[in-house]
Amino acid sequence: MSQTGTSVFPKRFVHVNTVGSALGGGRKVSIPLAYGYPAPETFPIAELSEATVSALQESGPEMLQYSGGSGQQKIVEWIRNRSRLRSIYAEEKNILVTSGSNQGIDLAARALAEPGDEVWVEAPTYFGGIRAIQLAGASLRAFPIDSQGLCVDLVEEALMKAKKDNGKIPKFIYILPNYQNPGGTALSLERRKKLAELAYHYNFYIVEDDAYVELNFTGHTLPSIYSFAPDRVIYLSTFSKIVAPGIRCAWMIAYEEILKRAKILKSDGLTSVFVQETISCLLEKMNFDKHVQKLIACYCSRKDAMVQAIHNDFQDEVSFNEPAGGFFLWLTFPSFIDTSYMLEKAYKKSVNFIPGNAFFLNKTTSSHLRLAFSSCDEESINRGIERLAEIYFKMRNSL
Amino acid sequence: MSQTGTSVFPKRFVHVNTVGSALGGGRKVSIPLAYGYPAPETFPIAELSEATVSALQESGPEMLQYSGGSGQQKIVEWIRNRSRLRSIYAEEKNILVTSGSNQGIDLAARALAEPGDEVWVEAPTYFGGIRAIQLAGASLRAFPIDSQGLCVDLVEEALMKAKKDNGKIPKFIYILPNYQNPGGTALSLERRKKLAELAYHYNFYIVEDDAYVELNFTGHTLPSIYSFAPDRVIYLSTFSKIVAPGIRCAWMIAYEEILKRAKILKSDGLTSVFVQETISCLLEKMNFDKHVQKLIACYCSRKDAMVQAIHNDFQDEVSFNEPAGGFFLWLTFPSFIDTSYMLEKAYKKSVNFIPGNAFFLNKTTSSHLRLAFSSCDEESINRGIERLAEIYFKMRNSL
Repeated sequence: MSQTGTSVFPKRFVHVNTVGSALGGGRKVSIPLAYGYPAPETFPIAELSEATVSALQESGPEMLQYSGGSGQQKIVEWIRNRSRLRSIYAEEKNILVTSGSNQGIDLAARALAEPGDEVWVEAPTYFGGIRAIQLAGASLRAFPIDSQGLCVDLVEEALMKAKKDNGKIPKFIYILPNYQNPGGTALSLERRKKLAELAYHYNFYIVEDDAYVELNFTGHTLPSIYSFAPDRVIYLSTFSKIVAPGIRCAWMIAYEEILKRAKILKSDGLTSVFVQETISCLLEKMNFDKHVQKLIACYCSRKDAMVQAIHNDFQDEVSFNEPAGGFFLWLTFPSFIDTSYMLEKAYKKSVNFIPGNAFFLNKTTSSHLRLAFSSCDEESINRGIERLAEIYFKMRNSL
Repeated sequence: MSQTGTSVFPKRFVHVNTVGSALGGGRKVSIPLAYGYPAPETFPIAELSEATVSALQESGPEMLQYSGGSGQQKIVEWIRNRSRLRSIYAEEKNILVTSGSNQGIDLAARALAEPGDEVWVEAPTYFGGIRAIQLAGASLRAFPIDSQGLCVDLVEEALMKAKKDNGKIPKFIYILPNYQNPGGTALSLERRKKLAELAYHYNFYIVEDDAYVELNFTGHTLPSIYSFAPDRVIYLSTFSKIVAPGIRCAWMIAYEEILKRAKILKSDGLTSVFVQETISCLLEKMNFDKHVQKLIACYCSRKDAMVQAIHNDFQDEVSFNEPAGGFFLWLTFPSFIDTSYMLEKAYKKSVNFIPGNAFFLNKTTSSHLRLAFSSCDEESINRGIERLAEIYFKMRNSL
């Protein structure tokens, strides 16, 4: 191939976090604790098969055309109804079906921000979110989380200072309020309200990534941030954790002006109407609440197994908050531990995880790591934690 | 809702052509000649139903997970084999499955160009292409087409002048070489070779949008531009016209460096693996060549009907090139006709088309229009053309 003199990277690629690109492409291990893959045994395979056949039978020509049939209206109606559980009262015009939640973050980031703008995020936070915001050209600034989620008081301080010093007010704050990825924390009610107030007062938006909200182990859910600031929040959720991620179907709820921009940016047009019509048929036919109860039972049991195994095998050497839902545990080791180095050892024992540095801006090392308890059964989780503990104690004792 | 002080449009939205946003959302008519919707009676509905059932049965848990199963490798293998018919000899690493061709244009535009860059296009050209390039922030410059496609001699002159005057060489040229949308023309072999030469000589890329290549009414296809400049061309094609558009599945062929960037920008992750696995199963089971022959017979017959109707009803009042494939006829009326005004009249007779100005940069009026012969049967086409001719003669006679 000849030299490619014009292949200079456009500026949008500079300093982009590409951790997520490795998704599914990493080294194979027998006990995968790295990525938040849903448990495949919970996928409604037979129901999905029936739903596809029915949908094609009932409305094949429409559901294969660019514009789709009535399934899209039905799926939007389902989203509207389900969202009421989060105190979200949205109209059809406020809902956009997206090809996965990640696309939602990308659309929101590009609809709201441009080079020169600032966006504030949690530390740690989801690497896909970091990347989407970086690709929109915005600069990132991170604020810590504690056991109650984002430290909103620190955000308020920074906003006051920015206003006083004529500094930058963020275009938006990206936040995962429920069972944060990777932290596992849930944002307290008080902080939700406070953040909504700040958004109005300082004139910024909030991108509320609520991918895990259904997977709630306590039976008690808080109202969404959206419910306190419907014209300030872009709310994202997804079928990935409650039906299956391979279908790529999620949604965005926002006020019309934002949705109009998101649609312009959505270069795949409508999200596969074949998929939308199939899911709408599936939702009509299945007992969704029963299905979610099954998911919760599965993930809660795996979480319990992982928590117990860590207590047994690590003793007091590692700290973490027990999550009230979701897929992840976030471990903090003594500061002399570099979890990237630990991962190299883990691969040799055919187990993996994601080192903490992937979830921070510009961090090269970290003594944190994220474990996903979603895709392995209890026995594998026990074996995986045992292996990680062996690695850890060997590392610690050799230092 | 409160006032939204921060809702200033990011610069990327300024001057964006949003014609395509109306796709499927326009006014309903009984004879739709506006959009290039494939004939729904050609959709392989029963085969797709069987393919989904088989695929879910054979590899349900894998095909619903983020990463998918073996179907993706199979679909890429099919694309590799099929591309040889266009003299494209690509490896697996050069192929990316996308969620529709339009996503491919968007990814290519953002992978290659950034604000301040120039991109050159055909005049007229596909409005979705214009929009994707505008959203990447590039400035557009257009070059006319004639009966042989893009006037490559004018492109060469402009390149020479740009080099001499220290002007801007385009980052890429966006072109539809086969049965151009909307022009219906095919780029001649000589011009394909010349354009490839120029790309090497002046150091730019070519985005070759080949959505209609399979729908060839003559039995004679030219080699792709890609075949003359594999490391200078991003080649795009799609399942939308040969299986169904509602599934949203297409592909990009390019050298690795470009593909790497496209993957970073592809915010929906892998294109729905559920869809990919289903299509790969469909392609395995169906007689694809026979299916394409059926499509060609259908579209060629509709094209013939439209050409005949125009000759009959418009006499010599309108000029056009008879297309050798694809979905479209591009009509040129006397210059005193404004086709946007004509469209208002057409809606009243329940027929539509796309006025020519949608396919040019910054044009407000045009005496051209695009007709799609793809989605209506011969009888409807006859009635539609009859109505348009009535409108035209009334307009002409009243001027």
